[in-house]
Amino acid sequence: MSYNLKEIAKIAGASIEGDAGVEITGLAKIEEAGPGQLTFIANPKYEKYIHQTRASAILVADDFPKSDKTLLRCKDPYFAFLTLAQKLYGMGPSLARGVHPTAIIGEGTQVGKGVAIGAYVVIGERCHIGDDVQIYPGVVLSNEVAIGKGSVLYANVTVRERCRIGERVIVHMGGVIGSDGFGFAFHEGRYHKIPQTGIVLIEDDVEIGANTTIDRATLGATIIRRGTKLDNLIQVAHNVEIGEHTVMAAQTGIAGSTKIGNNVRFGGQVGIAGHIEVGDNVTVGAQSGIDKNIPSGAYFFGYPARSARTVMRELSALTRLPELLRRVKKLEEIIESLTEQLQKQSAK
Amino acid sequence: MSYNLKEIAKIAGASIEGDAGVEITGLAKIEEAGPGQLTFIANPKYEKYIHQTRASAILVADDFPKSDKTLLRCKDPYFAFLTLAQKLYGMGPSLARGVHPTAIIGEGTQVGKGVAIGAYVVIGERCHIGDDVQIYPGVVLSNEVAIGKGSVLYANVTVRERCRIGERVIVHMGGVIGSDGFGFAFHEGRYHKIPQTGIVLIEDDVEIGANTTIDRATLGATIIRRGTKLDNLIQVAHNVEIGEHTVMAAQTGIAGSTKIGNNVRFGGQVGIAGHIEVGDNVTVGAQSGIDKNIPSGAYFFGYPARSARTVMRELSALTRLPELLRRVKKLEEIIESLTEQLQKQSAK
Amino acid sequence: MSYNLKEIAKIAGASIEGDAGVEITGLAKIEEAGPGQLTFIANPKYEKYIHQTRASAILVADDFPKSDKTLLRCKDPYFAFLTLAQKLYGMGPSLARGVHPTAIIGEGTQVGKGVAIGAYVVIGERCHIGDDVQIYPGVVLSNEVAIGKGSVLYANVTVRERCRIGERVIVHMGGVIGSDGFGFAFHEGRYHKIPQTGIVLIEDDVEIGANTTIDRATLGATIIRRGTKLDNLIQVAHNVEIGEHTVMAAQTGIAGSTKIGNNVRFGGQVGIAGHIEVGDNVTVGAQSGIDKNIPSGAYFFGYPARSARTVMRELSALTRLPELLRRVKKLEEIIESLTEQLQKQSAK
Repeated sequence: MSYNLKEIAKIAGASIEGDAGVEITGLAKIEEAGPGQLTFIANPKYEKYIHQTRASAILVADDFPKSDKTLLRCKDPYFAFLTLAQKLYGMGPSLARGVHPTAIIGEGTQVGKGVAIGAYVVIGERCHIGDDVQIYPGVVLSNEVAIGKGSVLYANVTVRERCRIGERVIVHMGGVIGSDGFGFAFHEGRYHKIPQTGIVLIEDDVEIGANTTIDRATLGATIIRRGTKLDNLIQVAHNVEIGEHTVMAAQTGIAGSTKIGNNVRFGGQVGIAGHIEVGDNVTVGAQSGIDKNIPSGAYFFGYPARSARTVMRELSALTRLPELLRRVKKLEEIIESLTEQLQKQSAK
Repeated sequence: MSYNLKEIAKIAGASIEGDAGVEITGLAKIEEAGPGQLTFIANPKYEKYIHQTRASAILVADDFPKSDKTLLRCKDPYFAFLTLAQKLYGMGPSLARGVHPTAIIGEGTQVGKGVAIGAYVVIGERCHIGDDVQIYPGVVLSNEVAIGKGSVLYANVTVRERCRIGERVIVHMGGVIGSDGFGFAFHEGRYHKIPQTGIVLIEDDVEIGANTTIDRATLGATIIRRGTKLDNLIQVAHNVEIGEHTVMAAQTGIAGSTKIGNNVRFGGQVGIAGHIEVGDNVTVGAQSGIDKNIPSGAYFFGYPARSARTVMRELSALTRLPELLRRVKKLEEIIESLTEQLQKQSAK
Repeated sequence: MSYNLKEIAKIAGASIEGDAGVEITGLAKIEEAGPGQLTFIANPKYEKYIHQTRASAILVADDFPKSDKTLLRCKDPYFAFLTLAQKLYGMGPSLARGVHPTAIIGEGTQVGKGVAIGAYVVIGERCHIGDDVQIYPGVVLSNEVAIGKGSVLYANVTVRERCRIGERVIVHMGGVIGSDGFGFAFHEGRYHKIPQTGIVLIEDDVEIGANTTIDRATLGATIIRRGTKLDNLIQVAHNVEIGEHTVMAAQTGIAGSTKIGNNVRFGGQVGIAGHIEVGDNVTVGAQSGIDKNIPSGAYFFGYPARSARTVMRELSALTRLPELLRRVKKLEEIIESLTEQLQKQSAK
């Protein structure tokens, strides 16, 4: 790969400040970039690297200070870098088109055009595989699964019967879609399994992380709405609904029947109880434990999670608690002494 | 599927109050049920839906208020619904009986009657596979593994050498049984691996969630006793023992050699240190961190976990801490002023 | 297996105190050991078992008290036991050498001597598989993956394109290496995927737990340095670097671009934010939430994590908070009364 800086500037929608003649052969982080590489500064934390970087050009924001380096000025350098990366590297590896001879495809399954189905893939009966779908080796789909156009299932993903995955969805390695919800009725000294007869419904443009597990509904559907991105090792229990364009960091767990709104952001390792409602545009700090509803627009964190402002004030007060104990002890001594003095005065 | 309401009432052990002539074609949640569907109310939270539901009949408890809807009265509507669901839908998908021609079965392995062994399954040598076992595609069993009668291993489950799984056990997709325990001896600047030569022993009627990992013992066995249910993404370390009829929600982690009693209930994301003992009938709240033994019958939560009552009192006190800081500051000012006044009086 | 105690003592570097004639047929935990078995005491907690154990011999430290049992005295009984276990049991199962006829190996891939490649393994193009590597059934390697000499990949492990794994590395079942980092740019109401074009680099003698996920870098490499051991279900995000000889217990999660030093020890379920630096020789307690840098040598814990001493003091003060509230209330009453008295006196 080799691009003239002018071509790069055109893709990025940027203006060149400096030597427009350089050839760009790759992208790199500012700390690591060498001659021929293009880098970017989006976070002020990284501005200090501008003096020492050996990159041939740097994508920066329109209001970035002047520099003796070759700059590409644009409105949003991170997004411009991402556009370039997508253009230059593509969105990931491409599996060879076609159906590998060892792939097993059940009766009544329809397979679209331009698909790539790898070695030792097992697809059940009456499934629907859309055009341009990529299914990597070792994936197992049960009967009547639907995978929309352009979706990618990486190696060893498993999807159980009747689950429906939209278009341009990505499921990373080891992701589990449609395992039984965790439902039992305790009766006469032991647990009886409640059949989990629902499905998982994943809408368009969703991304599901590696080894994340999404349980099927008891009845109805567990739903992940369009544009939502789930990181690795997340647990989504039966009958959960997650809204649109919501992002959740790794190892978060959502208990049964909880509903989460649109444009919500969760840090990692958040836990949320069952039958809770979280509104739209909510932000939840990492490791929080949510045990009650959260209104739209709120910023919550803590264990148990409450308004960030409240929790911050408590945590700050908590750091003063050992000192407070000493202050109260001192007050008690002074008051004892005052009381004695007062009694003596009264006795006079 | 279509059942007369009288047949339904018979299976559920319920009495009909209303139109006994309706035909039932399916089950559904009360919010979603339509004509021809049966639903239930077990949780008072859902009673409000009775007026608006379009279900043809509703399973309710014996003491449920009268209604103009067709009711099926019984002692335990949730359990009755579960019994019906098991009867009407079965307990999950059934893999086609027989051994798929691509399944590889090692020498000396005994396979029972009525089994279903899917495509690309790999079973080691000298294993024992009981009658009616279902093994889904992509499962890998190492040598000398035993799987009891009627158990189900979903797609891509892995079980390492010599582990023993009882009867009617279910392991969901991606579950790992018998990986090495995390044991190392630090010696001369680096960690030396301690061979993990024990096994995992899973008794009858246990359920293991998707992508849950159960490590083999260093010596002896990691044990999950009968009737216990583990949710997804749980970590069970080497030499742990979990008692009978215990349930643990997702993402809980149990460190090495810890023993957990019978009829215990853990919320999600609980962490428990190594070499701890938890008694019988214990309840532990979600996200708790257990660092010492818990006596039988206790209800613990918090980080670190202690009696729920103690932690509740502390958390409630904590919310009053910022106000307490102000109160103590005010007291200090009053006392300073009192002290001055008193000194003046004494000086008179 | 049967060894004379003298042979055992020689392997263990121990001296015999008692009956040197016993035959040892196996190793066992002290609570479970029977005749013919050798056990050890390394932890004082287990000394109480010496009177009741039926083991034929016991490995103990040089300064262990005298006993009527047959003792093998040595400097480090745990390490001696480990050495014996490695000698007697080996380091785990061995896959049959050779390449299984169902394994698929892509063009241009080089395979070393003495390898064991199991059934239904899929290896991409231009990979490099070192000598004596063991790859269990169901493993999927994408193109241009390198696996160093003597490494072991257990069943259903997946490794994506261009990732590099060193020598004597062990990856347990379901481990995921090189999944996409969780990187999106929010632009015009939806998230755009940032291509994750970097790799994962795992150095020599690393161990990766079952179902642990290690994301590839956005650019550059996510790095796990030599001798480091990661337990099960851990999440390592893009561009993280973990130093040498560091150990992390299960279910820990590390967010993007965080750097962790050498000889660090993390308890289970620790969460650490992105772009953080943790020094060398740091210890972090289980379930801690790290949101800022930790200097070398520190012992941190808590949520949020701070110096263990500080957090301990706060937690201890917190237990006294309900009582403190009562004490302050009482002080307020006394002061009110004192103030009244003083006013009366002044009024006199």
